[in-house]
Amino acid sequence: MRTVEAKNTSRIRVAVNGYGVIGKRVADAVRVQPDMDLVGVGDVSTDYRVRAAVILGLPLYAAQPDRAHDMEAAGIPVAGALEDLLAQAEVVVDCTPKGVGAMNLERYRTAGVKAVLQGGEKHSATGHCFVAQANYESALGRDATRVVSCNTTATVRTLFALDSAGLLRKARGVLVRRATDPWESHLGGIMNTVVPEPRIPSHQTVDAQRIMPHLDVVTLAAKAAHTQTHNHYWVAELRRKASRQQVLEAFRAAPRVALIRMSDGIEGLNSTIELMKDLGRPRGDMWEVAVWEDVLKVQGREVFYTYQVYNEAVVVPENVDAVRALAGTVTVGHESIRITDASLGIRSQFLAP
Amino acid sequence: MRTVEAKNTSRIRVAVNGYGVIGKRVADAVRVQPDMDLVGVGDVSTDYRVRAAVILGLPLYAAQPDRAHDMEAAGIPVAGALEDLLAQAEVVVDCTPKGVGAMNLERYRTAGVKAVLQGGEKHSATGHCFVAQANYESALGRDATRVVSCNTTATVRTLFALDSAGLLRKARGVLVRRATDPWESHLGGIMNTVVPEPRIPSHQTVDAQRIMPHLDVVTLAAKAAHTQTHNHYWVAELRRKASRQQVLEAFRAAPRVALIRMSDGIEGLNSTIELMKDLGRPRGDMWEVAVWEDVLKVQGREVFYTYQVYNEAVVVPENVDAVRALAGTVTVGHESIRITDASLGIRSQFLAP
Repeated sequence: MRTVEAKNTSRIRVAVNGYGVIGKRVADAVRVQPDMDLVGVGDVSTDYRVRAAVILGLPLYAAQPDRAHDMEAAGIPVAGALEDLLAQAEVVVDCTPKGVGAMNLERYRTAGVKAVLQGGEKHSATGHCFVAQANYESALGRDATRVVSCNTTATVRTLFALDSAGLLRKARGVLVRRATDPWESHLGGIMNTVVPEPRIPSHQTVDAQRIMPHLDVVTLAAKAAHTQTHNHYWVAELRRKASRQQVLEAFRAAPRVALIRMSDGIEGLNSTIELMKDLGRPRGDMWEVAVWEDVLKVQGREVFYTYQVYNEAVVVPENVDAVRALAGTVTVGHESIRITDASLGIRSQFLAP
Repeated sequence: MRTVEAKNTSRIRVAVNGYGVIGKRVADAVRVQPDMDLVGVGDVSTDYRVRAAVILGLPLYAAQPDRAHDMEAAGIPVAGALEDLLAQAEVVVDCTPKGVGAMNLERYRTAGVKAVLQGGEKHSATGHCFVAQANYESALGRDATRVVSCNTTATVRTLFALDSAGLLRKARGVLVRRATDPWESHLGGIMNTVVPEPRIPSHQTVDAQRIMPHLDVVTLAAKAAHTQTHNHYWVAELRRKASRQQVLEAFRAAPRVALIRMSDGIEGLNSTIELMKDLGRPRGDMWEVAVWEDVLKVQGREVFYTYQVYNEAVVVPENVDAVRALAGTVTVGHESIRITDASLGIRSQFLAP
């Protein structure tokens, strides 16, 4: 992660509540933003994850009053209660487990702190869904928004890319999701099966249409047996005849979409997992949606393609942008995206110098 | 498996060459046909699989001359050479590893024995692809045909069902394949990744169109991490407006397609694996393509659905029918299908009495 200069010199004070898969990554990302300060993180746990935050020197707050005692008894220094954390913050990024974020929202509002919720919460909690490149500006001045799930974020990033280029008529996608996250794969998550989502369209369709209301999209989803990252397959109908190169150009022009190639030996989801580590990415994270350039096929007015989605990392840049949008310090989406992406080191291709 | 009376009393003498995943199942299926005799099986191995054939009392032949000595040295009684097996057969079902079947074809022709090859062989080897319900009659009188792969068989069964009902305009499918077969999953087959097929359309498209030349179909394929059975996701465009019930009716009317329901607790690929064992199926096999009835969705002129394909078993009834078509003893496809399905106990639903 690099130091990037922001034009705006006012710094946003950010709290992260919930130091799990997303929270710890958002905390890291906030810390490298030129226009943000991480004032602290909240959690309720006493396990290795929270202790790692202590080792990193992050001020830790007890997110529930009844947890402070246990946390201190476990040797975890508690800087205060959630309200103490909120008192220092302008924006809180809530990364607590599904359903908790919506319950927390009232506490945030009472404290006068703007809030970014995650895709696990219901849309109705905030009334606004967020994917930076698609609707950053509509979040300006709001008191809360919801960064949609990893699958929806990836869906909107790629379909918005085609739509912005005037290419997209409709899209049908099959989302092959990972069974479980690596950190919890000892909890019965490893499985030797595939589990289709019973509902068609899957919830990603609804969320994507909240961000792009005119979007003609249907998603089918399944949970597969692997434990790392999602893999989407798309059949999109184009609005006009376009060459393979024009479609690829639309993806190349989109932020946070990187092109990868089978011919470089990137042949499965495991390949980028290795590559991200080799590139020195923190936690081996890939924030970009990685579209296989040499698999993508145009046939008549249809385009077929597949890409990989790091469910643990892909929404991290969106969370950073959502903070800026709520704070209102940067009023144009692409400017926030530029700052976030430069800070994190987001790339449009991985193997170019 | 039940005893079924065939109208035609002439019995077809059948050999099975290659006693692997498909071969052993075809051998079992042939043995329960009312109009077939299994004259013996050929193989080259000395391991537990071939020894099991000996225990079952099957006459075993050395498929390669240089293997007879090793097989006998390993205590496996060898009834003769492949030519001895072929001398007793009218039709041989070749279930040898990919590429070997095509090489064997000359030996079969020299022996004057008709041959059924598997989907691992190139189409050019026989010049004819076979899925019973779609093109049985076109195999009558031929000296060889090729039963297409499990994925193509399932694709043709289901799309032919929609097409026969006058419903199908075009279909786009994503085939989520198993990583490896259970028997060889100790050979590095277990994996924690997904591997997209680099080529769009995948080979199943070409094979399906060989059987249904007018079919507007594109398949995308991937290899997922689980080890048992495939799972397909389809987006099909209908030729005319149809209700959900009409689409389900088309599947119900098709042979070897069974409807299953999430609401019965059949929630993943593992569910039918358990159910088939509970139903006493040999080897726990599911010969049917199992379409999730309560997942299937009709929206406008599109239908979305998912089904499960037992790659080890789904082509077994097709192999039996292909034997009959080449022998020419039954001249109408649906009559052969009736005999095969009754013998095996194939069902259109599993949980009805």
